[in-house]
Amino acid sequence: MAVDRDFEQLWADLEPVGRSSSSGGYFRQPWTTPESELRAWFVEQAEARGLVVESDGLGNVIAWWSPIVRDVLQDKSGTEPAKRHGLSGVVTGSHLDSVLDGGAYDGPLGVVSGLAAVDRLRERGFTPSRPIGVSVFVEEEGSRFGLACLGSRLATGATTWEQARELRDRDGVFLPDALERAGLAGGQDQWNVRERVDCFVELHVEQGRDLVDRGAAVGVGSAIWPHGRYRFDFTGQANHAGTTRMEDRHDPMLSYAMTALAANKQARLAGQRATFGRIEVAPNGTNAIPSTVTGWLDARCESEEALATMVAEIERLAQERSGRDGTSLTVTAESVSPAVHFDDALAARLSKVVGDAPVIPTGAGHDAGILATAGIPTAMLFVRNRTGISHSPEEHADMADCLAGVEALADTLEELAR
Amino acid sequence: MAVDRDFEQLWADLEPVGRSSSSGGYFRQPWTTPESELRAWFVEQAEARGLVVESDGLGNVIAWWSPIVRDVLQDKSGTEPAKRHGLSGVVTGSHLDSVLDGGAYDGPLGVVSGLAAVDRLRERGFTPSRPIGVSVFVEEEGSRFGLACLGSRLATGATTWEQARELRDRDGVFLPDALERAGLAGGQDQWNVRERVDCFVELHVEQGRDLVDRGAAVGVGSAIWPHGRYRFDFTGQANHAGTTRMEDRHDPMLSYAMTALAANKQARLAGQRATFGRIEVAPNGTNAIPSTVTGWLDARCESEEALATMVAEIERLAQERSGRDGTSLTVTAESVSPAVHFDDALAARLSKVVGDAPVIPTGAGHDAGILATAGIPTAMLFVRNRTGISHSPEEHADMADCLAGVEALADTLEELAR
Repeated sequence: MAVDRDFEQLWADLEPVGRSSSSGGYFRQPWTTPESELRAWFVEQAEARGLVVESDGLGNVIAWWSPIVRDVLQDKSGTEPAKRHGLSGVVTGSHLDSVLDGGAYDGPLGVVSGLAAVDRLRERGFTPSRPIGVSVFVEEEGSRFGLACLGSRLATGATTWEQARELRDRDGVFLPDALERAGLAGGQDQWNVRERVDCFVELHVEQGRDLVDRGAAVGVGSAIWPHGRYRFDFTGQANHAGTTRMEDRHDPMLSYAMTALAANKQARLAGQRATFGRIEVAPNGTNAIPSTVTGWLDARCESEEALATMVAEIERLAQERSGRDGTSLTVTAESVSPAVHFDDALAARLSKVVGDAPVIPTGAGHDAGILATAGIPTAMLFVRNRTGISHSPEEHADMADCLAGVEALADTLEELAR
Repeated sequence: MAVDRDFEQLWADLEPVGRSSSSGGYFRQPWTTPESELRAWFVEQAEARGLVVESDGLGNVIAWWSPIVRDVLQDKSGTEPAKRHGLSGVVTGSHLDSVLDGGAYDGPLGVVSGLAAVDRLRERGFTPSRPIGVSVFVEEEGSRFGLACLGSRLATGATTWEQARELRDRDGVFLPDALERAGLAGGQDQWNVRERVDCFVELHVEQGRDLVDRGAAVGVGSAIWPHGRYRFDFTGQANHAGTTRMEDRHDPMLSYAMTALAANKQARLAGQRATFGRIEVAPNGTNAIPSTVTGWLDARCESEEALATMVAEIERLAQERSGRDGTSLTVTAESVSPAVHFDDALAARLSKVVGDAPVIPTGAGHDAGILATAGIPTAMLFVRNRTGISHSPEEHADMADCLAGVEALADTLEELAR
């Protein structure tokens, strides 16, 4: 099929953008050059397909394929014709940003598949009865400003601009300044996606081994585990590593180290997930006992009760150790996302449409979860990941599975917009 | 005394240079602006005293007070008169660079006290029978290029320029490029201090509580513990923090955390010192299991045997844990300094000269240790540190103790150059 070749070409277009030549991983943090390039590429591809592109002050984008597109395009009476004509409909999409040193598929696969699914539907001669949109939400990973799904949170009102404008990146840059540098207007020019999106479908590479184990190329999402990010600030006393007797120390590295091990143990015991993957140490010198160690706990559990219990236990153990080390600890919940249960009837319907695909939960957060929480009927499609690895250069989906994903997404959009 | 007021002024001159307004600590990494300012200030002060300043391609400096100074200065027959005239003699001094977020005294106290001791000897009307020099050695802390005492190592030949030119800082800048940017010629223009220094005395703030416990303002050094810096590179597998089952992980943060705790425990059991104060994590993202974690072990023991035994035990425990975590570990010794025993007879003589000062060992490395190892008769004077804390903004010596240090250093130089 022509669409298959086109999909492969679209995919190849993205391959070099923001890729590290040493690790092979991607660095596509929001409002940096690689991510801006990807967004410009998306707009170009959408316009080449005659889609109507609208974007907000954060850089969230929806490209509309719609029977009223001609009317909208012919309307020269003012700016933002899409907005004035009240375009809304079935929207698919994902994100283009990556974690630090991430894989190629997490995010871009859903965006590229959205464009390819529109191509596929046109090839089939399908005429949608309501608008279909392909979307890109910004800062899904939270890799720059620490708050995952920032674009969709602002677009649904889950986070307000007043809260978001206080966010700072690792270099101390405030969000409004980062947006201004990227030529964006910021939150004063903010969508309410509830006015735009009647129904949302996100296609995403699977981030575990469920589909590999089940021998299925595509699955349908049932739920997202509740998820929290907690900052653990351990404060001790900087001192000389060579001259300070062990018994005179107040070393926050020890409190941190025990906490990282305790988090792992608690998650194993409870059958849940807990990770300390990020740390900042001051002064971070070989011959100085640190003054402060900050670690970030990423915790996910099958229920909100399990999450609260596990995090409380980790914090209790951390406080206990901190007391023994003569250090102090403050814990700050940077974000806590409740469980998301996707629309059961919709999931069952889509499972049937795409060939009795398995219906599976995930531990990963997605923009789809934010839109579902905002009350928009939402579904997810997962594409098998051969390695089961994600947030890593080793993430991988076979081309045949990606094309099966495009076909499933086209079937889904046809079902929802027929 | 006028010298006391002058010392206080000299000390006040340095106070703002490279100081962080948030922590109150100092950032005076070698060949950066604050450190270059300090070096320029030292040259200005030395020249104002009529001392003859010579420096090498690294930025090591000696300022000479010498009866042959006039001859040297009157010699207009070529460049580098000090070198051609073969100046050598009794040298005192220390360093001006700091650790990251360090204290005010570690290094600069010895340099300022050297200048003040020359003033004091002139005030006494003393005429030295051989040249007295005040020196500054660069990159004593190893805070930028990882190798402590780099300036004195190169100046004694303990490290060769061929080895040093391969060193890189955290930003990947090679040493020769850093020197070039600072306007320095590099190792091709390198002293051999053994030709310059007949005898070396370093005055330094104490980095522990020994003099506080003994109630003495000044002490004399007996020995420096052997010291090693070891890089522990743990490699695992980057993966998604939310979707990867605990049992499928290869998380190098866990291997690191257990190693940091084990190092602490081994040092406590053996009555020695072991510290993990510096860490680098990739990709260091909240929602990614790391691919690599690198930790630096700083280890110091009362004997070389004890050091080798302790480090071997820490490495064994780290390898064992790494095996259980499914990660891999390589350990690289970045520097290992043997024990330094200062000249016993010289220490005893100086102890008497400065008023029966206690003779004490230290766990901290110093340029004096490098010069002693190079076969130069060497001694150290320590000034009491009220907090016992060092490598921290809390490091502190009372002004009265600093002035007692100047007096002791003047007595020492008079004894050695009479």
